[in-house]
Amino acid sequence: MESESNTKTMRCKTCYEEYDPCEAGTCNMCYEMASEAKEQLLQEFKELERAYEQLDDKVAFLRLWSPVDQAHRGSPDPVFPDVVLVAPDDGLPPVPVPAHKAVLVNRSPVFKAMLEHEMEESRSGTIKISGVSYDVLRAFVNYLYTAEAWLDKQMACDLLVFAEKYQVNHLKGFCEKFLVSKLNWDNSLWTYAFAHQHGAKLLLDAAFTFITHNIHNLTKTKEYKELVEKDARLVVEIYEAFLSKRLNTTVFKYTSKEP
Amino acid sequence: MESESNTKTMRCKTCYEEYDPCEAGTCNMCYEMASEAKEQLLQEFKELERAYEQLDDKVAFLRLWSPVDQAHRGSPDPVFPDVVLVAPDDGLPPVPVPAHKAVLVNRSPVFKAMLEHEMEESRSGTIKISGVSYDVLRAFVNYLYTAEAWLDKQMACDLLVFAEKYQVNHLKGFCEKFLVSKLNWDNSLWTYAFAHQHGAKLLLDAAFTFITHNIHNLTKTKEYKELVEKDARLVVEIYEAFLSKRLNTTVFKYTSKEP
Repeated sequence: MESESNTKTMRCKTCYEEYDPCEAGTCNMCYEMASEAKEQLLQEFKELERAYEQLDDKVAFLRLWSPVDQAHRGSPDPVFPDVVLVAPDDGLPPVPVPAHKAVLVNRSPVFKAMLEHEMEESRSGTIKISGVSYDVLRAFVNYLYTAEAWLDKQMACDLLVFAEKYQVNHLKGFCEKFLVSKLNWDNSLWTYAFAHQHGAKLLLDAAFTFITHNIHNLTKTKEYKELVEKDARLVVEIYEAFLSKRLNTTVFKYTSKEP
Repeated sequence: MESESNTKTMRCKTCYEEYDPCEAGTCNMCYEMASEAKEQLLQEFKELERAYEQLDDKVAFLRLWSPVDQAHRGSPDPVFPDVVLVAPDDGLPPVPVPAHKAVLVNRSPVFKAMLEHEMEESRSGTIKISGVSYDVLRAFVNYLYTAEAWLDKQMACDLLVFAEKYQVNHLKGFCEKFLVSKLNWDNSLWTYAFAHQHGAKLLLDAAFTFITHNIHNLTKTKEYKELVEKDARLVVEIYEAFLSKRLNTTVFKYTSKEP
């Protein structure tokens, strides 16, 4: 036994230093249990790290070279595309984005329906995409192959809209997470309206939290006045959600206090 | 301060129970540090869990439907294959395995060279595969799309050989890990020879460890005698590696003891 009960000082089982009884921490049983628990947690952490590395290797294996990048590296036709996507740019002749039907069909139920049912796009091998720029289309196709995209706020919004239209949920979630990371009080109302319009639940909830944290200043902002003009029902929805949440919290607090 | 220095019993800061001084664990400073460290480790663990989940979603997104499974689900031509692989089976008419050039080129440098350089296979759209059964070819193609395979020992060996030939390192590693998990003293010598033949470093090292743990019984086994007959140089290599490792360990021990 390392603790010395007959002297004034005692010896710590962790640092082996002597200490005064008034500086005591845990009893021996808790010390032993904590040591075991720490060891187990460390073990689990290491196992998770190994599993993470293996999963990371799997991502690298499953990732495909994007035919977009391939074309930009100067290779003429190295990945055997069997379809092109075209986004008509204002005034400029459109630049086709090469792709593979198999990849489009795998990633998007909309492309699946379009290509598997002998529609015009399947026969011609050309899919016309409206309402997006060439850059956004390129980033979109790139993501379908690599699950990666370089984002700024504009690109994240454009890709989110595109991903919603073609039901590429993974890309939609990717853009949502990016926009959540860029949320602040100034853009929260605009973001709420945007998320609402495109059914982006994660982003909507995060924007709502920002708004409600500072709700007493809401009416003072220019964005608020503009939104009331443009879409008063949405503003009503925010107030309703705020009050409903508050009521629930109050009821919960009240209920919690009961014996 | 919860410890009571003027009484015989003390109070633990973890379980709040009283204990006798001779049952003391840590000093307060170590208790505080351990609590902080545990909190931090838990935090890191949760972050890693979140990152793991996100990576798992990415794997699910990047995984492609295997054209093999697709064909077996009764869909006639739903994934637009542009190449077939054929493994001539003894006597039976070969069953072609549909695939996509883009996927083969992405996953295997051998297929890349074959298909990108206007060789016979690229022109005809048929790749003849020798030395494997239809089942192995099917599992191989399936893995290129999904990074998954159902393995038993025979399938793991066959796929490892196939993966080595076509330089699909991820599949090779997958098979190696499976075979490592099936290692025991009885199959360690056979596995060592197999791993040596196919340059499977991970498996070779694991088999070597098994052999050296029981090296004094090595000469008594039937497998040993067979291997001496078949490939005596390999047996010499095992002895050399064993002695070299032992020498290194001894030198290290000796060096470590020096002042």
